[in-house]
Amino acid sequence: MIELEEAREIVLSQVKVLAPERVDLLSSLGRTLAEDVYDDFDIPGFDRAAMDGYAVISKDTDSASKKKPVVFEVIADVPAGYSTKERVRRGKAVRIMTGAPMPQGADAVVMVEDTEKEEGKVKVFCRVTREENISFAGEDVRKGELIIPQGSLIRPAEVAMLASLGKKNVLVRTKPRVAILSTGDELVEVGKTLKKGEIYDSNSFALFSQVLLSGGEPYRLGIALDKKENLLARIKEGLSYQLLILSGGVSMGDYDLVTGVLKEAGVKMMFWKVAVKPGKPTFFGIRKDTLVFGLPGYPVSSMVNFENLVRPAIFSMLGRRDWQRIRVKAILKKTVLSRGKRKKFIRVKLIKEGDSYVAVPAPSQHSGVLKSMVWADGFLILPQEVERIEEGKEVSVELLK
Amino acid sequence: MIELEEAREIVLSQVKVLAPERVDLLSSLGRTLAEDVYDDFDIPGFDRAAMDGYAVISKDTDSASKKKPVVFEVIADVPAGYSTKERVRRGKAVRIMTGAPMPQGADAVVMVEDTEKEEGKVKVFCRVTREENISFAGEDVRKGELIIPQGSLIRPAEVAMLASLGKKNVLVRTKPRVAILSTGDELVEVGKTLKKGEIYDSNSFALFSQVLLSGGEPYRLGIALDKKENLLARIKEGLSYQLLILSGGVSMGDYDLVTGVLKEAGVKMMFWKVAVKPGKPTFFGIRKDTLVFGLPGYPVSSMVNFENLVRPAIFSMLGRRDWQRIRVKAILKKTVLSRGKRKKFIRVKLIKEGDSYVAVPAPSQHSGVLKSMVWADGFLILPQEVERIEEGKEVSVELLK
Repeated sequence: MIELEEAREIVLSQVKVLAPERVDLLSSLGRTLAEDVYDDFDIPGFDRAAMDGYAVISKDTDSASKKKPVVFEVIADVPAGYSTKERVRRGKAVRIMTGAPMPQGADAVVMVEDTEKEEGKVKVFCRVTREENISFAGEDVRKGELIIPQGSLIRPAEVAMLASLGKKNVLVRTKPRVAILSTGDELVEVGKTLKKGEIYDSNSFALFSQVLLSGGEPYRLGIALDKKENLLARIKEGLSYQLLILSGGVSMGDYDLVTGVLKEAGVKMMFWKVAVKPGKPTFFGIRKDTLVFGLPGYPVSSMVNFENLVRPAIFSMLGRRDWQRIRVKAILKKTVLSRGKRKKFIRVKLIKEGDSYVAVPAPSQHSGVLKSMVWADGFLILPQEVERIEEGKEVSVELLK
Repeated sequence: MIELEEAREIVLSQVKVLAPERVDLLSSLGRTLAEDVYDDFDIPGFDRAAMDGYAVISKDTDSASKKKPVVFEVIADVPAGYSTKERVRRGKAVRIMTGAPMPQGADAVVMVEDTEKEEGKVKVFCRVTREENISFAGEDVRKGELIIPQGSLIRPAEVAMLASLGKKNVLVRTKPRVAILSTGDELVEVGKTLKKGEIYDSNSFALFSQVLLSGGEPYRLGIALDKKENLLARIKEGLSYQLLILSGGVSMGDYDLVTGVLKEAGVKMMFWKVAVKPGKPTFFGIRKDTLVFGLPGYPVSSMVNFENLVRPAIFSMLGRRDWQRIRVKAILKKTVLSRGKRKKFIRVKLIKEGDSYVAVPAPSQHSGVLKSMVWADGFLILPQEVERIEEGKEVSVELLK
C-alpha cells in the first residue's frame, strides 16, 4: 500500500504529452494550447480615443469651465473604423468616437458629456490634461510579447485574445482517447430489467462524464463479465487506447480476475493499493504507451480515485499542470469521524452563511453510497493520522467543480 | 444609472423558464434537470456483502483469534451477480464476493484477509460483530425518496445516480438560443487583413464561449456596421432568438445608433447604465419573450457584464438558482486603487502560497486590456464607497471558473 502522493508521482512519471492538432478558433474552448502564442502587432495598433468626444490640444482647455467654456472649431468627424488626415492645431477640434484613431496634433479627448455642439463649433466646459482619454498603441499587447504560453487551458478570455490577434485557428493538444470498461457479473446495462443480485452499471457513466470534464475523449467498452476469456478480449481492445480505465475487480477475491488478466495482457503493474479512503484497491499499470487504471467497483471509490489519479494523468497528457483543485475554507457543521490509517476524502456540501462557508458532511460516507457524491460540492481531506474533526472547526474543502 | 443588484433583479424578473426536452443519459452531462427524480426501488435492492469473504453467523466467530481460528464448513460460493438458496446455519459459511446478496441466516461477513482456505473448509482468525461488512438494502437510496430535484446541474455524480436508477434518458431544460451581434465599423472578421483604424472583432468570440460555458446555445450573427438599415435588419433577426446580445454601440456618441434602432425594433428599454466598473454603458430591454442585452464594446467590460447579468439570466432560463460564484479568501499582493462611485471588478490571479492564496491584480485594469482577463482567475470586487485596498489585506475573490 502506497501513499496517494507517491501513487500520483508514479502515474505522472509515465505520462507522455500528446501530439498537437490544429482546430478552428471557435472550437478551441476547453482545449489546451499546444503552442506559445506571441503577438505579431501592437494591440491596439494605433493611439485611439478611449471616449466619445472631441480630440483637442489639451493646453487649449486650460481655462475651460462650466461658466466660461472654450469654443473650438470642429474640422472633422471620425467614427470608429475611420480616420482623418486633418491635423489638429490650436483652437481646432476633431469630433471622435471611442476606438477611432487619434488625429495628428491632438493630445487628449474631451468627453462628449463635457461639451455642447454648435453649428461647426463645440463648447468645451471642462479642462483635460495631456493624454487624457486616449488608449495608446500597444496598451493591451506589445508586438513580440508572449501572450499565452502553451499548456494553458483555453477559456473565453483566451478565445477572445486569440481572435484579437487575428488567429483563425489554433494549435491544441489532441484529446486522450480513454476506454472505459466495467467488470462484474452483477452489472446490468441501463434500460434492461434487473434480476435478483443484479445492479445497474453506473460507474462507466460516472467515468465517461469525468473523462469528458477532464478534457479526454471517452469510449464505453460496455460491461465485461467475470470470465477470463471475455475479460482478456475486452482488455486487449482497451489497450489500443491511450488510457484504459477498468472499474471493479481489483480487490482480494478469487473472482476478481482483473489483475491476473491484466498481467496476461502484458500490463506491467506499478501499484495496486493506495492509502486512501474510499478507494484503497486501486491498480495502476502500463503497457507500451497505454496507462491502465483499475478502479474499485464501489461507485464513490471509483469517482474519488478518478479525481485523485486519472484526472491528473489526463491533464498531464494535455500538457497542463493545473490539476490541483481550488480549496475553500469553511466551518465544519458536524463532527466527522473516519477511522483507519489512510487519507480520507469526506464528501461535503458547502453552504454560504454570510461572508463565509459552512461544510456539511453527507449523512452517509459509505463508499457504496453514490448519494454522497450527488450531495458533495467538494472533499474535506483528513490526513492519515487524523480520525476525527470537531464540529465548529475551520476546515479546508477541495472544490469538485 | 442603477446598482448592479437592482439591474440583476430587473433582468431575472423578466426570465421565463424554458420548456423541457428528453435526452439520452450520456448526453445529459452539463444540462439542467427539468424533473424531480424519485427512486422506484431500494438501492441496493438487497442486503449484500460489503467485502470479499465468508458470510457467517457472527456469534460463531466469538472465540476466533490468530492463534485459535474457528473452522467453518463452506456450503456455497456466491460471486457478485449470483445468489444462493443455501441457508447459513451454525458452523457453516458461504464464500461470498463484494456486492453479492447475503445468504439467508448469515448476519456478518468475515473479510477474506482474516481467513485461510482449506479443502471444503475455512479457518477464521478474527471475530466479527453482527451486521459487520454488510451493505443493507436501501442504504444508498430508499424507494420513493426524492433523489435529485429539478433545477439541478447534471454533473458526473448525477449521471451515475440516474444510471443506477436505471434511467436511460432524462428530462432536461432546452438550451436558450442566444444570438450574438458585434457592432462597429472598426471591426473586422478574424482571418481578414486589418486597415488603419480597424481591429479584429473579439467580443463575439468571448461571448460565444461564455454562452457555451453558461449552458446556452450561441449563434454568431456576425458584425453589423454602424448603419441604421443594416443594424435594424440584424437586430430583427436576433429578436427571433430567446436572447440577443449586442456588443458595442451603447455609449453616448452619435454613431452609437444601437439604442435608437433597438427602440425602433420594438425593444422596450428597462435600463441602460449600471454602476459597475468596467461596464457602465450596459443596456437591457425586452421584446415579447426575447431578452436583449447591449454590452459595452470594450472587451473586458463586455466579458464582465456578461458574467454579472447575462449568465444569471441564462441560468434562470434553465431553472437554475446557483449562478452565484464561489468566493475564496486571499491576501492582496499589491495595493489596488480604482476611483469612482461604482462597484469595481478588479481582475486578479490567485497563487497558492502554503495553505492560503495570494491575489495578484492584473498590471493594467483598463477595460480595453483583454490581457487582464487572460490573467484573471477571478474578480476582487470593490464596493461603491471603496476606492483603495492596501497590499497585505485579506480579500474575497469571486472565482471565474
